[in-house]
Amino acid sequence: MSDASGSIAAVTERLRSTLPSDAVITDPTRRAAYDCDGLLHYRVTPAVVVLARDTDQVQAAVQACMTHGLPFVARGSGTGLSGGALPHADGVLIVMSGFREIREVSARDQRAVVDPGVINLQISQRTRPDGYYFAPDPSSQQICTIGGNVAENSGGAHCLKYGFTAAHVLSLDVVTPDGDRFAFGTRAPDAPGYDVLGAFVGSEGTLGIATSATVRLLRTPETVQTFLAGFADTDAAGAAVSAIIGAGIVPAAIEMMDALAIEAAEAAVACNYPAGAGAVLVVELDGPGAEVDSELAAAEQHCREHGAFEIRIAADDQERQAIWRGRKSAFAAVGRISPDYIVQDGVIPRTALPEVLRRMKQLADDGGVRVANVFHAGDGNLHPLVLFDDAVPGQADAAEETSGAIIDLCLEHGGSITGEHGVGSDKAKHMPKMFTEDDLDTMQRIRCAFDPTGISNPGKVFPTPRLCGEVPRRHSASDDSRTPTTTAGVEIF
Amino acid sequence: MSDASGSIAAVTERLRSTLPSDAVITDPTRRAAYDCDGLLHYRVTPAVVVLARDTDQVQAAVQACMTHGLPFVARGSGTGLSGGALPHADGVLIVMSGFREIREVSARDQRAVVDPGVINLQISQRTRPDGYYFAPDPSSQQICTIGGNVAENSGGAHCLKYGFTAAHVLSLDVVTPDGDRFAFGTRAPDAPGYDVLGAFVGSEGTLGIATSATVRLLRTPETVQTFLAGFADTDAAGAAVSAIIGAGIVPAAIEMMDALAIEAAEAAVACNYPAGAGAVLVVELDGPGAEVDSELAAAEQHCREHGAFEIRIAADDQERQAIWRGRKSAFAAVGRISPDYIVQDGVIPRTALPEVLRRMKQLADDGGVRVANVFHAGDGNLHPLVLFDDAVPGQADAAEETSGAIIDLCLEHGGSITGEHGVGSDKAKHMPKMFTEDDLDTMQRIRCAFDPTGISNPGKVFPTPRLCGEVPRRHSASDDSRTPTTTAGVEIF
Repeated sequence: MSDASGSIAAVTERLRSTLPSDAVITDPTRRAAYDCDGLLHYRVTPAVVVLARDTDQVQAAVQACMTHGLPFVARGSGTGLSGGALPHADGVLIVMSGFREIREVSARDQRAVVDPGVINLQISQRTRPDGYYFAPDPSSQQICTIGGNVAENSGGAHCLKYGFTAAHVLSLDVVTPDGDRFAFGTRAPDAPGYDVLGAFVGSEGTLGIATSATVRLLRTPETVQTFLAGFADTDAAGAAVSAIIGAGIVPAAIEMMDALAIEAAEAAVACNYPAGAGAVLVVELDGPGAEVDSELAAAEQHCREHGAFEIRIAADDQERQAIWRGRKSAFAAVGRISPDYIVQDGVIPRTALPEVLRRMKQLADDGGVRVANVFHAGDGNLHPLVLFDDAVPGQADAAEETSGAIIDLCLEHGGSITGEHGVGSDKAKHMPKMFTEDDLDTMQRIRCAFDPTGISNPGKVFPTPRLCGEVPRRHSASDDSRTPTTTAGVEIF
Repeated sequence: MSDASGSIAAVTERLRSTLPSDAVITDPTRRAAYDCDGLLHYRVTPAVVVLARDTDQVQAAVQACMTHGLPFVARGSGTGLSGGALPHADGVLIVMSGFREIREVSARDQRAVVDPGVINLQISQRTRPDGYYFAPDPSSQQICTIGGNVAENSGGAHCLKYGFTAAHVLSLDVVTPDGDRFAFGTRAPDAPGYDVLGAFVGSEGTLGIATSATVRLLRTPETVQTFLAGFADTDAAGAAVSAIIGAGIVPAAIEMMDALAIEAAEAAVACNYPAGAGAVLVVELDGPGAEVDSELAAAEQHCREHGAFEIRIAADDQERQAIWRGRKSAFAAVGRISPDYIVQDGVIPRTALPEVLRRMKQLADDGGVRVANVFHAGDGNLHPLVLFDDAVPGQADAAEETSGAIIDLCLEHGGSITGEHGVGSDKAKHMPKMFTEDDLDTMQRIRCAFDPTGISNPGKVFPTPRLCGEVPRRHSASDDSRTPTTTAGVEIF
């Protein structure tokens, strides 16, 4: 029996003795159901699956792993697109989706206290009657969990105006990798002490597992106006985006789709977007009525000045939903026009949009694949869909290569390897393109402070784990001449 | 020669050999000029003063301290009110105020790159012609430095709408306590990896020294409207604040002054506030014209409904400045009506305002002192000024006691020991009232990751330094029954 299998047996025995009998899954077929998240082409079956329903159970699982030096990975609904919840073959997968009560809603205090397995959209459904909602809205919001949103610092179409998940989490209860429980954050603005909460949100499961989240609720805006604008091409649409943002208007959302994405959406949901459009923008403005009216007029004007040949303003909620239907269906819709696809996630400065889109087209042509673009144009967060047919020999490799080349293209323009899908398993290899070794090592000082043995979601985020021990002195004290390390010289967006 | 004096001599010798001759001050009289910051009643003369002018000099000073195990403290203009820049008697004080160039301003990218010694207001002065400004506006903004703002995560009257310094720093170059240089943060939204930048901002000098800051610029709002409202008492003014915020209006600023603060301001600058007012509100709204107009009408209405007997809307910039003059002079003005005073800084939920103000009056009466209130009402950040006469035996102690009791009062109402002045030397003792030992220990894991020997601004923030070494296991692996630690159950604001 190998070391790992001995530890697995010991952990399993301990879990069985402390957890409810139906909470520990060892049957290979049932375990195999958890072998991936939304990044379907990475698959690993975990050694043991724990279905956790409360904090005590999460803590018991982590403590069992800690005692026997076994890795653990937390998973919510498994909708993540970077393989952040990819299991470890010799580890425990802790499934949080059954740990899902909304514990408290306080409209007056604009907050809700929720379990990590609560579905994102359920919070808004619960609070909307009181005039409040939870702002982060990843496309998967009907199914993804708050715990996953916290781990990945999830975004969504409306994060341009309202910020990512980090801006909406007031405090967290956490089980740390050494099996302790802590509360991170307070509800006071600018609370004293270090912002440990801020470092935890977006740490992709490498600093522990959140077991409770106090989230901020926003007031439902007084007015929402949405319009669809058709353009001849993405250059014109991109120029309109720059003009709107440059005028100081911050739309709630400003989304772009190119011709191929429109074609896919039409095939799937018959969204009836402007005929002949080479690109469309979906622009949403929200806030007090007077503000929205004036911004709507200005945004429409900017679109017309940059070549919009058709603008449709939604007259009511039904028309608004019709406009959004095309955008929201786009990812799934791509299946109608291509047997296989890779969803990429990169960031570029808004001003580089036209050039990056042109070069991306060239990369696709060179690789013999097609690329459809659906993206959060306001903050330059691209989601290129690289289309291919796995049945055609070589196409999968060509698509993978094109997808990687797109990330390099984003970095070349001062961008980022990920906008909102996270690093996970998929992009750890790209981290050294964006950060120096010293930068990565600095981040991992925090990892070592919380997870010195590296059992919390190992292999994610960092390409090379740091050996935790004494803080290394990489230079002698008299060596005053080191040049500073810098992050990639990215532009502001 | 003691250990410390031996180290001091060695560090001094090394500093003299590596830094310009006028950069190292050892003369006792000149050193004594740096014996305190804005918290005047804590005074310690540093062993050595270094006047740093660039990153190499900061790094050289830190490396000298590291080599000989001597503490260092960074200081900007010394305007901090919590003793965060209080020197160490056996340590080096690194004065950053001569390291003060604005290196780059990019209006299109909405950012500026500045040295840590740049004065807060200079950024806005430089960028205003292009239509941009730097939002954080502590009262000391004409003199305080960006490095100090970063260390203390400084706020100001307009942080209600625009957030504290942390929301306006995109990246930092830092010299860490082990003498290395790192870049924290990127300019991409939701960048991958841990948010080390977020943990650094507000760490009050305990994680190293920032040597360059890339800050975010905001567009100058299209319209600004300011009005002054006079009320019979603070209860009525507090109710108006709650009504305005409760209606979903987020003013750029909403400030309250009570009768004693108004009296002081009148004595100092003849601000001509409404006669007979027991409280005034200064309300400022900014944004697009249409939005501001509609919010102005609504805010005015809420004030009238809650008893405002006089409302003056500033017709132009000159009238706006006249309204602000009283508010901005209030702290200094208190000197006109009292020989001595303590500025307190606490946070309470907005809804607790009336009760807390009443109980505070009682505390003052019991202690035989007076308390004037000037504060950021929108986010419940109180700045009680405890007035006393040091010449009257016992009054200083009574004032100190009342000031401490006010902090307990804030905590009792679910608030915080500091809103924006920081913990520093002054409030480290209060930290255990707000955080459990485990919470404080969790924060100090990060301290240990960056400053394992505790030489970076020791004695600040944390009441008891953590011994850094192996991560302690505070419980056996089989002890699954620990209850979670929690932060004080503070309300949202």
